[in-house]
Amino acid sequence: MVAAAKVAVCLAVWLSVCQVRGSHISDGMNRTIQNLLQHYRISQKDRFNGKPVFSKEPLSGRIEAKMVIFGGILETYEKLINRMLKQLPTPSPQTAGSVEGLTSAITAAPGTASDAKSASGMSVRSELSFILEKVQELKKNYYQEEDKLLKGLQTIRHIQMDDPVVQSKALWELPKLYLEASSLPESIRQQRRRRRRQARRVKTHQRA
Amino acid sequence: MVAAAKVAVCLAVWLSVCQVRGSHISDGMNRTIQNLLQHYRISQKDRFNGKPVFSKEPLSGRIEAKMVIFGGILETYEKLINRMLKQLPTPSPQTAGSVEGLTSAITAAPGTASDAKSASGMSVRSELSFILEKVQELKKNYYQEEDKLLKGLQTIRHIQMDDPVVQSKALWELPKLYLEASSLPESIRQQRRRRRRQARRVKTHQRA
Repeated sequence: MVAAAKVAVCLAVWLSVCQVRGSHISDGMNRTIQNLLQHYRISQKDRFNGKPVFSKEPLSGRIEAKMVIFGGILETYEKLINRMLKQLPTPSPQTAGSVEGLTSAITAAPGTASDAKSASGMSVRSELSFILEKVQELKKNYYQEEDKLLKGLQTIRHIQMDDPVVQSKALWELPKLYLEASSLPESIRQQRRRRRRQARRVKTHQRA
Repeated sequence: MVAAAKVAVCLAVWLSVCQVRGSHISDGMNRTIQNLLQHYRISQKDRFNGKPVFSKEPLSGRIEAKMVIFGGILETYEKLINRMLKQLPTPSPQTAGSVEGLTSAITAAPGTASDAKSASGMSVRSELSFILEKVQELKKNYYQEEDKLLKGLQTIRHIQMDDPVVQSKALWELPKLYLEASSLPESIRQQRRRRRRQARRVKTHQRA
């Protein structure tokens, strides 16, 4: 009970510290994470060892780059929560159901399953499914472009490097790709220069 | 000899078709790829089977997204050429040397190694090393931001998903990251709206 209260207070402080202007996270999501942290308990020493899972470093670039990184973070959470779901004890036939069905259980009263372990597994399952849905929702609503980009990158990275046909075709395609890759940075520079000029002109115009 | 001429003509036509405005690819690089295609020979049916190694699809997005994809393509070429180098027959002690040393051999007269197979391997090695250097040069000069972004994505994707400490810490970090990921799309939208407004104002000002 004391440990639960500790986690709740810590999470409340953590959330107030990291509050992002104008955005908020729903009470339901907040409470669910709090409950899950009771199940996935680790020592304070491990929690605050100065090595976050998602380091701040890749998030220091331009806003477009940040969006790509966040796309990758959401994709990783999706995989991680699915893995955590798979690691839970298999639900008994009475309690088993689809993810959608399980998610609705989050607002329901405590389960009636006779096996305590299974009931606890069931509750964690519905809570994880609820968080998974929230992550997928955000990804689907705002990170579609980034998702496409990440899938494109995955395809590029997984070509059959030992296949002689792939090796020869890649050599054949290189001149065209090399040309495009060489010309693109100049296009970006021109675009940025144009934007800066436009911003300066607007400022001068406003002052006049 | 006929096959070599065929490849040379095909490559010349291919390059003239895919020429990108203002950019060009050096004669040395061009000739080297042409030579390498003699070594990495495949049938015309395989070459033009309508399945390019690097599909055009991921390159259809915004210019910033294109830069990320090209960063990934250059990274993949780097890995692929390194793999192709490893697959070559090991050079004899007389002909072995560092990549830098081998690269300079590209402009030298045909090798004097007694073993014909080794000499051919050696020439292909120096040619591949030359192309590898060209790819690395482009990546280093113009794709540093993208390289950093791709490395960040790799780190995110390779977290230890089965580690209970990672699972708990990731849950703990989720509220902060979810908040940021929710607020970012709005910042991007505002930035794009501001840019469009600035461009419109500049146009109106120019007309007046």
